[in-house]
Amino acid sequence: MNNPIIIAIDAMGGDNSPEKVIEGISIHSKLSKNVNYKIFGNENLINPFIKKYDISSQRYSLTHTDKIVQGEDSALSAAKRGKDTSLWLAVDSVKNANSHAIVSAGNTGALFLISKLNLKMIDKIDKPALSALWPSKKGMNVVLDLGANVECSSKNLVDFSIMGSALLKALFENAKPNVALLNIGSEELKGNAMIKETYHLLNDKKYSLFNFSGYIEGNHIMDGDVNVIVADGFTGNIALKTAEGTSNFIISELKNALSTSLIGKFSSLINYKNLKNFKNKLDPRLYNGAILLGLDKPVIKSHGSTDSIGFANSLKVCEKTIRGKLIDQIRQNIK
Amino acid sequence: MNNPIIIAIDAMGGDNSPEKVIEGISIHSKLSKNVNYKIFGNENLINPFIKKYDISSQRYSLTHTDKIVQGEDSALSAAKRGKDTSLWLAVDSVKNANSHAIVSAGNTGALFLISKLNLKMIDKIDKPALSALWPSKKGMNVVLDLGANVECSSKNLVDFSIMGSALLKALFENAKPNVALLNIGSEELKGNAMIKETYHLLNDKKYSLFNFSGYIEGNHIMDGDVNVIVADGFTGNIALKTAEGTSNFIISELKNALSTSLIGKFSSLINYKNLKNFKNKLDPRLYNGAILLGLDKPVIKSHGSTDSIGFANSLKVCEKTIRGKLIDQIRQNIK
Repeated sequence: MNNPIIIAIDAMGGDNSPEKVIEGISIHSKLSKNVNYKIFGNENLINPFIKKYDISSQRYSLTHTDKIVQGEDSALSAAKRGKDTSLWLAVDSVKNANSHAIVSAGNTGALFLISKLNLKMIDKIDKPALSALWPSKKGMNVVLDLGANVECSSKNLVDFSIMGSALLKALFENAKPNVALLNIGSEELKGNAMIKETYHLLNDKKYSLFNFSGYIEGNHIMDGDVNVIVADGFTGNIALKTAEGTSNFIISELKNALSTSLIGKFSSLINYKNLKNFKNKLDPRLYNGAILLGLDKPVIKSHGSTDSIGFANSLKVCEKTIRGKLIDQIRQNIK
Repeated sequence: MNNPIIIAIDAMGGDNSPEKVIEGISIHSKLSKNVNYKIFGNENLINPFIKKYDISSQRYSLTHTDKIVQGEDSALSAAKRGKDTSLWLAVDSVKNANSHAIVSAGNTGALFLISKLNLKMIDKIDKPALSALWPSKKGMNVVLDLGANVECSSKNLVDFSIMGSALLKALFENAKPNVALLNIGSEELKGNAMIKETYHLLNDKKYSLFNFSGYIEGNHIMDGDVNVIVADGFTGNIALKTAEGTSNFIISELKNALSTSLIGKFSSLINYKNLKNFKNKLDPRLYNGAILLGLDKPVIKSHGSTDSIGFANSLKVCEKTIRGKLIDQIRQNIK
């Protein structure tokens, strides 16, 4: 057996932590045998849950600190507070090569700033990008940047294309990345100068890692023909959040429709299994785990409000980025 | 009774025209008594449908031309072709004050360019904006700009706030417009310089027409607390198209879930009425009718692929902009 993968985990961030984090580790540890966990946080709060969720002592180590980064802290003040918070210690463990990657469900800005302060950028990449999984009719897409960089250059977007493709391949073994640039439809006004320039950069040079499919409009993101969607952080964030809002709106309208009458209640009971399949396919926990790409170690952000299953999924994403040699893939293709 | 409202209609644009246009006029004419229609297009193709859908001869006039703008024409070539296409004649009718407003289901770029060439901008407005209705948990929102202007200044966005609010009030009598700027969530990176500048312009001055609610993220567009959402045309288009794609994706997944098993088929029959209510609420025909704001006459674009019910709804939107004195409202508030 190979050496185990070691994941550093800030156990204190996000809602219902550390319980959901520890339960999530427990779930993941039963599915993935060759992974160990370096847990950082308050042992008085964590140990009872380690007992409750029965994590084998061979699978984890726990480093105690009672200092934590709060959700409402600014990234800067969290970083200034220094080296003894659970978040900083977890990042430090990756920096010192005691862990392969870090997962946190806590303060996003603090995770990224402390990671950027401590970890190195991959050579020749100027800006890290935030990426995430996005469901499509044919599987899963990678979308980036989702908000790390409000303004981007064409060079940045080319880097994002490479990094997003490497991520897709690390997560889904047989994936053949088709990259497109998120753009608008109106012919004459198609895109701004930066997007057009990126188009030419991607179109003129052939990349072995991916096919370049040109522009994609928002209404085709989920078709599945393109599976790496690239945008500046402002545009990507608007698209992600709008999709989230639309999905919530439709699901809540659907619930209303199914519960407004007796016959509706009755038939939704009958229909329970199918609706459950439907719900499972849209379950945001399945897509949990945003990845900060561009640093020389994987940095994974679990959604703060997810539960233990969602957290376990972000550990799975983390594990795959390591087994799939994400960072090496990026390094080899960025040259 | 007041003088009737007169709507100029290019009958030849969009899929299934002129039939859906003429049937749409017929539907609208039965619901709205004091509206007349100036129809432009090929009389040989149009007259049979006027007979078929039984439009009273007192309600319409028909101006014949066999020249039309095709969907695939560039806006520029359509405009250069000149004054004898059905689209140009319809715009001309508004320009010469023979009609109050124009509706077309045809080539969007050509409609807007020919309108901009022939109609005047409202005084002190630099750029027209494309706006549309967007459903929310509490009713309907107005969102603009949806793609007329890829790049905007803060002055443009302030104008859009006024125009969008005037549109909301014209369409929904008792509406109290709450305006917000579409922006991203990440605290430190909140928005670009242009958005921040617009924030200050809207926040520092009090507007009698609307309340300014600050920033809104994409996932809250459909909550209904804010009902005028303002963005540059690139961002607005990305949001609109992404919402459309997400909605299509979920509905198609839902259909799959309900049809994959016998029990699913059975229970979706039982559930038919509720699902129909659900579907009706999301019916895109209800929101049909994008409005180009900023010109001194209402210019309404019906979706090219909509049917007669959708086209009738765009006539309803058109009628409301006139009855609600949209242009006067904008003029009074733009000073």
